[in-house]
Amino acid sequence: MDNADSVNVRVFSLNCWGIRYLSKHCPQRYAMIGEMLSKEEHDIVLLQEVWSEKDYLCLKKKLACTHPHSHYFKSGVIGSGLAIFTKYRIHDTFVYRYSLNGYPYMAHHGDWFGGKAVGMAVLNVGGLTANVYVTHLHAEYCREKDSYLPHRVVQAWELQQFIRHTSAGADVVILGGDLNMHPQDLGNRLLRSYTGLQDSYLETAKFDGCEDGMTLIADNPFITEKELGPFDKGIRIDYILFKSSSKADIHCDSMSTTKGSVPDHPFPYSDHEALTAELRLESCSPAETGADRPSKTQDSTAGRLAELVDIVTEARTEVKVGLHCAERMRYTAARTAVMGLALLFLELAIAAVPWLALGAEQPFPRTSFYLLAVLCFAILLTTSLLYIFYTMELKSLQGAEDQMRLAVSSLQEKLRGFPLAQPHNPPRRPPEGQEPGAFHPEE
Amino acid sequence: MDNADSVNVRVFSLNCWGIRYLSKHCPQRYAMIGEMLSKEEHDIVLLQEVWSEKDYLCLKKKLACTHPHSHYFKSGVIGSGLAIFTKYRIHDTFVYRYSLNGYPYMAHHGDWFGGKAVGMAVLNVGGLTANVYVTHLHAEYCREKDSYLPHRVVQAWELQQFIRHTSAGADVVILGGDLNMHPQDLGNRLLRSYTGLQDSYLETAKFDGCEDGMTLIADNPFITEKELGPFDKGIRIDYILFKSSSKADIHCDSMSTTKGSVPDHPFPYSDHEALTAELRLESCSPAETGADRPSKTQDSTAGRLAELVDIVTEARTEVKVGLHCAERMRYTAARTAVMGLALLFLELAIAAVPWLALGAEQPFPRTSFYLLAVLCFAILLTTSLLYIFYTMELKSLQGAEDQMRLAVSSLQEKLRGFPLAQPHNPPRRPPEGQEPGAFHPEE
Repeated sequence: MDNADSVNVRVFSLNCWGIRYLSKHCPQRYAMIGEMLSKEEHDIVLLQEVWSEKDYLCLKKKLACTHPHSHYFKSGVIGSGLAIFTKYRIHDTFVYRYSLNGYPYMAHHGDWFGGKAVGMAVLNVGGLTANVYVTHLHAEYCREKDSYLPHRVVQAWELQQFIRHTSAGADVVILGGDLNMHPQDLGNRLLRSYTGLQDSYLETAKFDGCEDGMTLIADNPFITEKELGPFDKGIRIDYILFKSSSKADIHCDSMSTTKGSVPDHPFPYSDHEALTAELRLESCSPAETGADRPSKTQDSTAGRLAELVDIVTEARTEVKVGLHCAERMRYTAARTAVMGLALLFLELAIAAVPWLALGAEQPFPRTSFYLLAVLCFAILLTTSLLYIFYTMELKSLQGAEDQMRLAVSSLQEKLRGFPLAQPHNPPRRPPEGQEPGAFHPEE
Repeated sequence: MDNADSVNVRVFSLNCWGIRYLSKHCPQRYAMIGEMLSKEEHDIVLLQEVWSEKDYLCLKKKLACTHPHSHYFKSGVIGSGLAIFTKYRIHDTFVYRYSLNGYPYMAHHGDWFGGKAVGMAVLNVGGLTANVYVTHLHAEYCREKDSYLPHRVVQAWELQQFIRHTSAGADVVILGGDLNMHPQDLGNRLLRSYTGLQDSYLETAKFDGCEDGMTLIADNPFITEKELGPFDKGIRIDYILFKSSSKADIHCDSMSTTKGSVPDHPFPYSDHEALTAELRLESCSPAETGADRPSKTQDSTAGRLAELVDIVTEARTEVKVGLHCAERMRYTAARTAVMGLALLFLELAIAAVPWLALGAEQPFPRTSFYLLAVLCFAILLTTSLLYIFYTMELKSLQGAEDQMRLAVSSLQEKLRGFPLAQPHNPPRRPPEGQEPGAFHPEE
């Protein structure tokens, strides 16, 4: 189906690993990235981990001719790290900050300070309204015992909500970024199933890049063996996803990734590989919309709904695990606070006794008294802050759980229209063999 | 135009003033509210300041028969306070937390802890998709010297963004809540002009309620004279807004407010008056959409765009004022932190001198030493936290300012298609005679 009304759009996505003074060869790598981008002239460039606005402004200056339109999404203490450069005029932008994003006291992981978010830019691409999203989810530091999994699942949930609710008026939806999730991870299935986004790597007609489309590879000199864990060759966690609409069909003509090195340079652009997807946007005439396209059968719709119910139920189970954990942590904080308070009262009692009964006969241990008082106050302050933090975490997790329960019940309501589809074998299963939790509709 | 396909929807909105143990007669008022709601059987009930989830659950139980579907929007430390009760099934919910919401150290104002947000519920009303929003913006404590104005303007900005971007697929848009803004306030004009939302009070065919539709009135026994300031009769800060679409026309048949008292009860439902709007939703057939409706002339569209440019520019000026203020506060925090650090070093030097030179000959002033050290640490900790907080505030304000600049430039681009419309006299002006800032397109 070759159409005269087709536009080719080259989309680029890269996690720049741009922590000033901490990331290796940061200024040199930014110079390389700027050079490459101005040479390659991609239509849409989606960058993550541009942690310093100065680096963004530097890139903006360098790309002023090739990519006259750009936006840096601000959020949190040190920014969201998200930036977009494009040839198309940006008509509108919007940013959604995820409600959960790690813990402030896990400073060595640093995710909390980043204020992770999803940024949206509305572009006009060849007469079509394109909603372009760029995001970066919480990192996975230990796959076996991933304490951030509930946070990442809630982020994926909020990401799909944001995309679904904001893209109703869009003809084209494109999402690029570092999702920090393997292709079959729960959050990824949740995102793709709910939004209907398609994976460029799986849909592309032609691919040139790392084996299995991996974007964090052992061959990259910035990657240590430890980071990859059991996946010794590498993992695929960066994506370019897209979605057609009734007004436009999207095809991925080709896709490529960098392969851990850059010709004529001593090191690669980043610790992540860069992704480039060549998308072909074909406008559909209104007449075409109904007649020309294969209409979905009842069965496939019901199958998709049933699959979605399974995935949301699985996500809900994961969020519940996070809820129990946050409750336990909050309880520990409260208990420690009570202990600190008890210690303070004990100390005051000890101080009051010699003052009342012994007078000035015995020397009062001032130093130990003050040190202990300081310790008590420090305990009280820290545990109070932690209690507030865990309360906020609980609220967010409960909020997501509520929404998921509502979604499952609404999906099941829809599913009742297709009696043939139940019982059902979900077509995709998690490779880790995670059992989806039993579903008890509570509302 | 009477249509067979019309649905009547009664929408109710009330700020419940539900701070447990602090708001006057809280349990009695909740009992009154529950009783009234179950008797009146409104189709959609939008509540604000339901700060305790227990109170929500109590209402939910009481309204189980009349309003089987409900949702409580969770956010922040003590929740967003937002709840929706409805006769229609809730298909989907989404919540957006405002990036700015006062200061945590202004504990007596308490807004920061509330985690103010806008909640959205997707309902199916007589075959139409209705996006129903409920929100509560930051309170205004002193109109003459309103240090929260930039925060409220950014909240209004984010509210209009959220509604605009999420309602593209909706046939009907309804917003209810306590906006804490007078009808002609900057944030209100920004919200209404950008989204095209209409004010039930201004559009209603029939009105029964307080003079000028006021919702915070002197006749309410919970309201003190001080709270109303120069507006001795009262102010209008609660609204029910709505928007038609190409698929449905909305008309407000009647509107009413409570008048500061409830028959047979010693006090009213809340310190705010309750709003009820009777909306008539008329489905438009696809044929009607183009032909039957008066098409907007070029002139009116251009006028609307030019007005919008003025309002966004005014909002940008206000955000810039907030930016300067936040920068100054951050600078003060940094300077105080440096002073705390200098004091600590000075103390260490004083401590080192007798230890090095005088040995144990002179008694060391332990008590003062420890007290001073504690003071230094307290200063350092507080100022560091404040510095981080102001940095986040700055990022949010800068982000909003960036988006506003982009919006103005995009609007002006559109406006260039209507050369006749410039120069232009904006039809609505702020009553306070605030001068909109000069506009310098920087991008």
